[in-house]
Amino acid sequence: MKLVRYTQGGSIHLGAVKGDGIVALDGLGYPTIQSIVEAGQAALDRIAAHLASAEPALSLADAKLIAPIEKPGKYLAIGMNYGKHLEEADRLGVARSKHQVWFNKQTTCLSGPYDDIDPGVTEKLDYEVELGLVIGKPAKKVSEADAKNHIFGYFVANDVSARDWQFHSSTFTMGKSFDTHGPIGPWIVTADEVADPHALDLRCYVNGELRQSNNTGGMIANIWKQISYLSTAFTLETGDLIATGTPEGVGVGMEPPVFLQPGDVVRCEIDGIGTIENKVVIPA
Amino acid sequence: MKLVRYTQGGSIHLGAVKGDGIVALDGLGYPTIQSIVEAGQAALDRIAAHLASAEPALSLADAKLIAPIEKPGKYLAIGMNYGKHLEEADRLGVARSKHQVWFNKQTTCLSGPYDDIDPGVTEKLDYEVELGLVIGKPAKKVSEADAKNHIFGYFVANDVSARDWQFHSSTFTMGKSFDTHGPIGPWIVTADEVADPHALDLRCYVNGELRQSNNTGGMIANIWKQISYLSTAFTLETGDLIATGTPEGVGVGMEPPVFLQPGDVVRCEIDGIGTIENKVVIPA
Repeated sequence: MKLVRYTQGGSIHLGAVKGDGIVALDGLGYPTIQSIVEAGQAALDRIAAHLASAEPALSLADAKLIAPIEKPGKYLAIGMNYGKHLEEADRLGVARSKHQVWFNKQTTCLSGPYDDIDPGVTEKLDYEVELGLVIGKPAKKVSEADAKNHIFGYFVANDVSARDWQFHSSTFTMGKSFDTHGPIGPWIVTADEVADPHALDLRCYVNGELRQSNNTGGMIANIWKQISYLSTAFTLETGDLIATGTPEGVGVGMEPPVFLQPGDVVRCEIDGIGTIENKVVIPA
Repeated sequence: MKLVRYTQGGSIHLGAVKGDGIVALDGLGYPTIQSIVEAGQAALDRIAAHLASAEPALSLADAKLIAPIEKPGKYLAIGMNYGKHLEEADRLGVARSKHQVWFNKQTTCLSGPYDDIDPGVTEKLDYEVELGLVIGKPAKKVSEADAKNHIFGYFVANDVSARDWQFHSSTFTMGKSFDTHGPIGPWIVTADEVADPHALDLRCYVNGELRQSNNTGGMIANIWKQISYLSTAFTLETGDLIATGTPEGVGVGMEPPVFLQPGDVVRCEIDGIGTIENKVVIPA
C-alpha cells in the first residue's frame, strides 16, 4: 500500500494510491499518517478494505502531494554508508569511524516530494539520494533479526546538504538541516510491499544527468544493523524517520566539485518505492 | 514566573510556583506548557492574574515534578563552549572548530528534574551542567541584537553523556541521547525574571563534591550568537530547547577520568534558575 498526504481546498488530506489515482481516507478515523502507523495492521486492514471498494477521487497527476508523514519525533541519517561514498568522504578529510556515523536532520527541514529546495546561505548545495524508512513500533535494544518487525514502511529521501555549513564542525549538524533540505516521498510504501529493502536500485539525476546509481545492497551497515545499533543507545519511536545512507556520486565528491545552482532539478528514484523531484529555487 | 509540570492522581498538571508551593493552572485554557509558550505574553498575563489571587494547592516538597515542557521539536546543544572545557576536549582529541559546534540530544532522552539516570550500555557515564533555554517564537535569520526577543525562558539542564558512545563517531550523536540522559528543570523561569543570562553562577556536584563551578559569562559563543548562528541555517521553532554549553570539570576531563557509578547523585544548580538532582540507578 502507498500512503500519501495531499492538500486540497486549503486543507491536508490522507490518501492511498490506487492505479494512477488517490483514494481519499477521510472518514476512516485516522486523522494523520502517524495515527495509521500507530494503529498498525488494524489500520492497514481497514484501509485495504476501503481501497477495494472505493474509486480514486483525484489523479496522482493532479494531486498536490506533501511530505507523506507529519513531523516526526526524530529524523536520523547515517553517513558514509556505501563503500565508494566513503572514499569520497576520505578525500574531504572526514575521519573514518569503525562505528556507524549518525547525525540528525532537524525535523524542520522536512518538505514534500516535489517542493522547491531553497539554497539558503550555502554556496555548496548538494544532493544525496537515500532509502528512507518509518519506524512502526518502539524499538529499544532490538536485535538485527527482529529489526524488520519495527519498520512500518519506506520512502525516497533526498538528504540535501550544505557542504560548507556541514563542515563547520565535525558533527555535520548545521549543514544537513536547512529549511526545505529534507524532501521525502512521494509516499510511504508499507513494508509488506518491499520484499527486500537491500535489493533496490536507487538513482539520482541532476537536470536529467545521472549522478548516482547504485543498489541498497551496497550499504556497509544494512538496515537491520542500523536499527539494532541505534536502539542499543536510545529508543526509536513510532513514526521516527531514518535515512539509510547515500552512494557515491554526490557533487562534492566530483573532481572538481560541482554544486547545485538555482534552476537545477534533482530527481531521486528508487525502484519499487518511487520518485521525488525537487527544483532549486531562491524564494522570491 | 516559574512554570512546572507535575503528576498527581495519575495525570499531568501544569502549575506556577508561589512561595514554596505550586498553584495549579487547571482550567485556565492552557493544556500544555507548549500552549503557554505559543500564547506568549497573553498567557503569562493571565497566569499572573490567577497567581495573585490563588493559593498553592500543594507544596513543592510534595510535588512530583516532571520535565517542565512537553517533548519539543528539537533539543540542540553546543559543545566546547567554555574555555577550559575546550581544553579538556583538546586532550580527548576533539578537533577544534572555528565555528560553534552543535549536536542534537534526541528528544526521547528528556526526563524530569529528579528522575533517575539509567546508565544503559555505557561504561563512561558523565555529567554536564548547562543553562538551558526555551525558544519563545520562531527564529529564522535572527540577529544577535534581536535574539533575546525569541527566548521564552530558562531551565537547568544536565547534558548527561555516554563518553564511550559519544566518541563512536565525530558527530557525538550516539552518546548524548541515551534514554533518561536529558534531565531538565526544575521549572522554566520566564525570561523577564532573568536580567542577564550571561551572569549566572552554575555548579555541579557529585555526591556533594563540587565538580563544576563557573559563570555563564564564560561562554565562548554567548546565547545571542548561538541563536543567530543556528537561525542562519534553519528555523528554531516555538518550544525548541537549547543547551548552552558546559564549563570544565566533567568526569572525562579529570586525570585520570572518573565516571559516574550506580548510586551516585548528580546535583546541577544555577543561581536564579534552580536545582535539579538525579541519581544514577540501574533499573530493576
